Amino acid sequence: MKIESFIRDIQNFPKEGIGFKDITPLLNDIEARKEALKLLVGKLNGQKIDKVVGIESRGFFFGTLLAQELNAGFVPVRKPRKLPFDTISESYELEYGSDTLEMHIDAIKPGEKVLLHDDVLATGGTAAAVCKLIERAGGEIVQCNFLMELDFLNGKEKLKGYDVQALIHY
Amino acid sequence: MKIESFIRDIQNFPKEGIGFKDITPLLNDIEARKEALKLLVGKLNGQKIDKVVGIESRGFFFGTLLAQELNAGFVPVRKPRKLPFDTISESYELEYGSDTLEMHIDAIKPGEKVLLHDDVLATGGTAAAVCKLIERAGGEIVQCNFLMELDFLNGKEKLKGYDVQALIHY
Repeated sequence: MKIESFIRDIQNFPKEGIGFKDITPLLNDIEARKEALKLLVGKLNGQKIDKVVGIESRGFFFGTLLAQELNAGFVPVRKPRKLPFDTISESYELEYGSDTLEMHIDAIKPGEKVLLHDDVLATGGTAAAVCKLIERAGGEIVQCNFLMELDFLNGKEKLKGYDVQALIHY
Repeated sequence: MKIESFIRDIQNFPKEGIGFKDITPLLNDIEARKEALKLLVGKLNGQKIDKVVGIESRGFFFGTLLAQELNAGFVPVRKPRKLPFDTISESYELEYGSDTLEMHIDAIKPGEKVLLHDDVLATGGTAAAVCKLIERAGGEIVQCNFLMELDFLNGKEKLKGYDVQALIHY
């Protein structure tokens, strides 16, 4: 099964000139979703994971599934003012301006093995900020995995030193 | 195991005078999360489900897990301008003003058996709007299930005629 065929190309979303990769057909199809989960788990080669961190909000889908499959805790990283308890936060640069992500202060314990998950690796700014959050909490990043990587944006550059994996490359 | 003990009470969030039920400790704990999922699945008494609809964004966590466990497709219902393909939408009243939710037009096929999931049933306005979306798409709502129900808000009133289930009642 080619999971690529369950990723839908949407032109000019969220704005003119941008091509968006829509994963909802993949979520909607039982077998394709299972296959993608199996392939993501396979990228770990059996390494033990204590916590899976999923990035708001498309990282929540396979993030929770990965946590369940790997017998790990799930940790949501969210946009500001969404997490109700005490948080740590990291800001990162966007093309125009900056953005911030938050994680609960008690979500990861020092020494825990962490898998970071998001749907797409683009410029890598978001994932790099989340790596900082995880490490500030004392977590050890085992891998950063993604359903897709937009190779031409060279996001791996911002994740140097980490094991970065993706199922589909564009 | 009492899953209640993994729900954290946060006072005055998101605003003064509101008590918020934080499910992140439940997501973070492997055994409690598994138990909650098992109990949610149990509420269906073996009824077949084709699609699980999860409401943005806290309904995405157990929504995807339920879809995986029930061997069903997963359908995210999202806030406006988040879903990239053609959508149908429903607006609903809030205390002040109104809000809108969207679903992809091809997410549910006529005749499919649907489970609606969200983390909390409060006033029921959100869930009632999503029921309309599901039925406009031709789906048959088998059950609306929630981790928690705030009984004093009487949200069930807005979901009359549906099988409404919750694991924890406040």
